[in-house]
Amino acid sequence: MTINTMFSTLVQDDIQSVEVLMRQQAEGKHEDLVAALDVLISAGGKRIRPTITILVGRMLGAAHRQLITLAAAIEMLHTATLVHDDLIDGSLLRRGMPTLNSQWSPGATVLTGDFMFARAAELAADTDSLPAMKLFAQTLSEIVNGEVNQLFQSHCSLSKERYFDRIYAKTASLFRTSCCAAALISPASDHVVDSMCTLGYEIGMAFQIVDDILDFTGEQRTLGKPVGGDLSSGLFTLPAIIYFEEHQDEPEIKELSSGDCDILEDEERLASLVEAIRNSDAIQKSHQEAENFVQRGLHELLKQPLSEERKALEEIAQYIIHRNI
Amino acid sequence: MTINTMFSTLVQDDIQSVEVLMRQQAEGKHEDLVAALDVLISAGGKRIRPTITILVGRMLGAAHRQLITLAAAIEMLHTATLVHDDLIDGSLLRRGMPTLNSQWSPGATVLTGDFMFARAAELAADTDSLPAMKLFAQTLSEIVNGEVNQLFQSHCSLSKERYFDRIYAKTASLFRTSCCAAALISPASDHVVDSMCTLGYEIGMAFQIVDDILDFTGEQRTLGKPVGGDLSSGLFTLPAIIYFEEHQDEPEIKELSSGDCDILEDEERLASLVEAIRNSDAIQKSHQEAENFVQRGLHELLKQPLSEERKALEEIAQYIIHRNI
Repeated sequence: MTINTMFSTLVQDDIQSVEVLMRQQAEGKHEDLVAALDVLISAGGKRIRPTITILVGRMLGAAHRQLITLAAAIEMLHTATLVHDDLIDGSLLRRGMPTLNSQWSPGATVLTGDFMFARAAELAADTDSLPAMKLFAQTLSEIVNGEVNQLFQSHCSLSKERYFDRIYAKTASLFRTSCCAAALISPASDHVVDSMCTLGYEIGMAFQIVDDILDFTGEQRTLGKPVGGDLSSGLFTLPAIIYFEEHQDEPEIKELSSGDCDILEDEERLASLVEAIRNSDAIQKSHQEAENFVQRGLHELLKQPLSEERKALEEIAQYIIHRNI
Repeated sequence: MTINTMFSTLVQDDIQSVEVLMRQQAEGKHEDLVAALDVLISAGGKRIRPTITILVGRMLGAAHRQLITLAAAIEMLHTATLVHDDLIDGSLLRRGMPTLNSQWSPGATVLTGDFMFARAAELAADTDSLPAMKLFAQTLSEIVNGEVNQLFQSHCSLSKERYFDRIYAKTASLFRTSCCAAALISPASDHVVDSMCTLGYEIGMAFQIVDDILDFTGEQRTLGKPVGGDLSSGLFTLPAIIYFEEHQDEPEIKELSSGDCDILEDEERLASLVEAIRNSDAIQKSHQEAENFVQRGLHELLKQPLSEERKALEEIAQYIIHRNI
């Protein structure tokens, strides 16, 4: 089930306009910057955030030009955060392609990310909506603050609350804004705006939980990174947290619970732990949590009258849950 | 002549409010981030940009809370760019203090800068002025684009035009916004807004030219970096460009003009070149260019009725020209 086949006819023209607008941001700039942006934009990904923005905006009657601008701002912000993320993590590949930092100096990589942040902010300002602009700036803060916490906080935390805070900042915050800002530039009541903010939040949380499940259940080939990569870097995601909760009497887990995560540096012990989590019911239980988030999102969505866009958003919600599992 | 003694009574309370608001941006965040921001804000500098913002806004009748917010946004943006700049240049000291990147990992430094960009954008949004917000986003783009050009473009350029473009992006763009945005949040006509934009542009250009002169005429002790540092890194500033123009028949200069700047790597030849420029009339001629910029700025300023604030802005313009020379 790929997102591209589902909505190709409904949003493909708009998504193309979004990509054109994103590329235009580098026009007249230094050729290396133009080339870098081109690579980053072409590498693409599923464009799930701008797709959601466009569907919500169209469903609620947003003006077309403003909506495309907003969607471009959101995808530009998303891409900018990936550029700095990869630099910080020292990642060499993303979506199977070499990262910018693997080929460029740290300075050039930092500046390319900064440039994209700047153009994202300009695009957001071009929507001419002060509330959308404010939400946008706030989202940027939330994302960066989440990254700061992830960098500075002690790892190996078994706290579910901290996990949910982390995935909110990392993912749900921008999903929320994708829906929320689309509603803000539409002729929608405050009540509908709130409802769309909730929709975005809930499917964003579900999206990251499923990503975290795939980190255990996926194949290295399709993930493009080692299975259990989060665990090996001391980042406990929902499947691990649930598994550890259910096996807290085992000596190994006791060690981890006490904050001593040295055992993760032992490759064999790590591999057997990943295997144990992968085969446990923690996967199914995590999946149930993701389903619960999506259901709460759908509950909001179904308050809207039936439309092609609403139907497409329902399908995206299902896609988020069922992709590659 | 220091800026602190001149305006201490007129703007000190407002500048203190700006600093309080800047510090508040880290409230509730991770303690390391709070500490980093505290160090960066305490290191301070002259606060010339927020001082100008406050004086222009007060002169034109801007609302006080909005003006403080705008001034904090501008100084926060300025500080954020310094954090990424120092990382990119690998600078270990700024204003005599260790830089963040000299003590923190690149990742932590990038994120601290990103966090400050994000909070600067939020503060700009908090002015509730869409035009000010738009200008702000555009300024961020201009600054970053200038840095990208500086990083990617061939060095050793003798083009005055390229020099002026560079100092616009690096310095005059934010000075322009400091005045321009203050006018935009004031009950000022479009004509007055334009006039204030020009004022900011002109004194910003002068400010950077004087900085570039000081790079030759200053003492290492007061500069906190080696004399002629720009030249040694292949960055030709106005004194060098004028000197090279006037000595284009000398073999060494011919070599440089042809784009071969290897001679700058020879310490002795570099030192004698710095000494030659320092003792030439290129310094006085550069200074005259800075004066011309300031005069054009003052021409705009003097269209405003006399007030304490106008007088203080005139003094700042004089300070910009005459500091430490």
